Amino acid sequence: MTTVHRVFNFAAGPAVMPVSVLEQMQRDMLALPGVGISILEISHRSKEFESILAQAEADIRMLAGVPANYRVLFLQGGASLQFSMVPMNLLGAGATADYIDTGSWADKAIKEGKKVGSVHVAASTKADNYHRIPSASEITLTEGAAYVHMTSNNTIEGTEWKTLPSTGAAPLVSDTSSDLFSRPIDVAKHALIYAGAQKNMGPAGLTVVIIREDLLERSKARAATLPTMLNYAVHAEHKSLYNTPPAVAIYATGLVMRWLLDQGGLPAIAAMNERKAATLYAEIDRTGFYRGTAAKDSRSLMNVTFRLPSEELETMFVKESTAAGLDGLKGHRAVGGMRASIYNAFPEAGVDALVAFMRDFERRNG
Amino acid sequence: MTTVHRVFNFAAGPAVMPVSVLEQMQRDMLALPGVGISILEISHRSKEFESILAQAEADIRMLAGVPANYRVLFLQGGASLQFSMVPMNLLGAGATADYIDTGSWADKAIKEGKKVGSVHVAASTKADNYHRIPSASEITLTEGAAYVHMTSNNTIEGTEWKTLPSTGAAPLVSDTSSDLFSRPIDVAKHALIYAGAQKNMGPAGLTVVIIREDLLERSKARAATLPTMLNYAVHAEHKSLYNTPPAVAIYATGLVMRWLLDQGGLPAIAAMNERKAATLYAEIDRTGFYRGTAAKDSRSLMNVTFRLPSEELETMFVKESTAAGLDGLKGHRAVGGMRASIYNAFPEAGVDALVAFMRDFERRNG
Repeated sequence: MTTVHRVFNFAAGPAVMPVSVLEQMQRDMLALPGVGISILEISHRSKEFESILAQAEADIRMLAGVPANYRVLFLQGGASLQFSMVPMNLLGAGATADYIDTGSWADKAIKEGKKVGSVHVAASTKADNYHRIPSASEITLTEGAAYVHMTSNNTIEGTEWKTLPSTGAAPLVSDTSSDLFSRPIDVAKHALIYAGAQKNMGPAGLTVVIIREDLLERSKARAATLPTMLNYAVHAEHKSLYNTPPAVAIYATGLVMRWLLDQGGLPAIAAMNERKAATLYAEIDRTGFYRGTAAKDSRSLMNVTFRLPSEELETMFVKESTAAGLDGLKGHRAVGGMRASIYNAFPEAGVDALVAFMRDFERRNG
Repeated sequence: MTTVHRVFNFAAGPAVMPVSVLEQMQRDMLALPGVGISILEISHRSKEFESILAQAEADIRMLAGVPANYRVLFLQGGASLQFSMVPMNLLGAGATADYIDTGSWADKAIKEGKKVGSVHVAASTKADNYHRIPSASEITLTEGAAYVHMTSNNTIEGTEWKTLPSTGAAPLVSDTSSDLFSRPIDVAKHALIYAGAQKNMGPAGLTVVIIREDLLERSKARAATLPTMLNYAVHAEHKSLYNTPPAVAIYATGLVMRWLLDQGGLPAIAAMNERKAATLYAEIDRTGFYRGTAAKDSRSLMNVTFRLPSEELETMFVKESTAAGLDGLKGHRAVGGMRASIYNAFPEAGVDALVAFMRDFERRNG
């Protein structure tokens, strides 16, 4: 096989995947071994695909220590569809849902929640341009809330929760799209966890939902009016095979879960992610030429956001880093500056290459 | 490269894809040429992916002659989610939608429609076990219907419409999941066409919607309450990039569209599909040992359904054909018997192999 040229891909998602996973998919692209059918073609009702699906679920359960009273669902539509499915399933008439507003995606979740029912914004750092996670004292919860919604990592603003908020008896719902399986997670402290696969898990087109079984009763109670495809209980009952699931994305995600287990699981990948982020933040803090945009105690290990002394320099930085094989460093248009997304599969060598580039760029322009 | 063993895959969907498409995906799995990033990893905001998306749309437009006042959308959730999106976008309070009930999937569409608003079943062949398409005289339309919904090919029952029903001024909405791009289609006679990709277009995880622009006004009028992800106008406005689309499925589908153009487009593929189906139906009709379940004037070119003299023989047929490398011939559990799905990419050699097997099986058991 000829050598393939790959750049360092700092994109915020879809994002870099383990090369060994891509190589296995390449090897088996025309036919899964012993099956004679490609994963792009295989019937979702075949025993071979059911086995792929069951293995992906088993590996997720092992990785994250998912308790027996939680269901793992493989859905479509991304976190954006979850913004609607969560309230449509869980927010009944007369009840209120609490939302903690920590960034652009949390804000979108709130907007969709308000279309469905009564929403209370329990805390917001919008006035601070979302550059920090609110402190416990800033959060005012509703007595008897239907649930409390949070965003564990804010992809655009580069912040993350270091400890979960206390929500008392209210079920905690977390959008973990950009940090699920990047570090250990205490599933039992959540009632529902959802994440688009395309950051730490696999390709775009798959959404993983982990839901505590008692919440399914709320979905069942709404079955007469809730669209079947948006009903968590239907997907749980049919083991994610109510209709044709996104087979390729599930297969690839399953391979990534196996890769994560081979790395030593979530504690091991977290240690690697901490090392990568520490290296990058140390460079950002070294001289003051670069400036981190997130408050230090809220810094994300996944999305490292920083500015340069001027927008002209930022434009130059993007252009020159791209030419140097460091792709996708331009920050989200909503906040500007730079963003280095360094998810699970992003190699430490890529962080080192970025640091070397940053030093050289500062030397030439500082 | 070593020779890969592939079986003849008669599955109803996900289904067989062109080998040349799988080979190109295999070749570029680690990095798209000149990009250095896999299609599984590429940012949907990159100019390279935008170009892939634009090319797929352009090829669909060329293939099907899509008029300029129609939008092509790349969505998720399958036809099953369209069962809800169609009425949620198009069926206003006080209006009625007509549905023509020609099979199990049409029936599911009706059930979801009824959750949203007033539904009139304009015709049904349920009493005939859906073995035929209704005649024009059986269809009673509602004056001023919001739309008329039909299912162009009934995957489970093996029937298809040979000519479109006349719906007057009412917009015609068609679930074309199992025959879109298998034959020429007069897009202008429809207001909305939808199809899961996993039959004739590509892998599971992508839904193609072709919608006449004036219908988007109905979506816009409901924007305050309609979930954003379920709003056709939002997806049209954002050119299918409102959120992260299923990039791999779009890419693969784009390659299949290009393959279809290389075959000579829809007239050429239709001729091949007619030849394949004619060969198979001729064998079914040859002696009476096999019995086609669809009325002859309603026979599907995509899903060829037939029975054997006894259920015991059917069980044996499934077992022996699978062992002979003819995979996926067992009929849907709702109707029993056999089903040979012979979509665009299913090779003529596979039909010949099935016919040879059928003759041999009849000789041994007839």
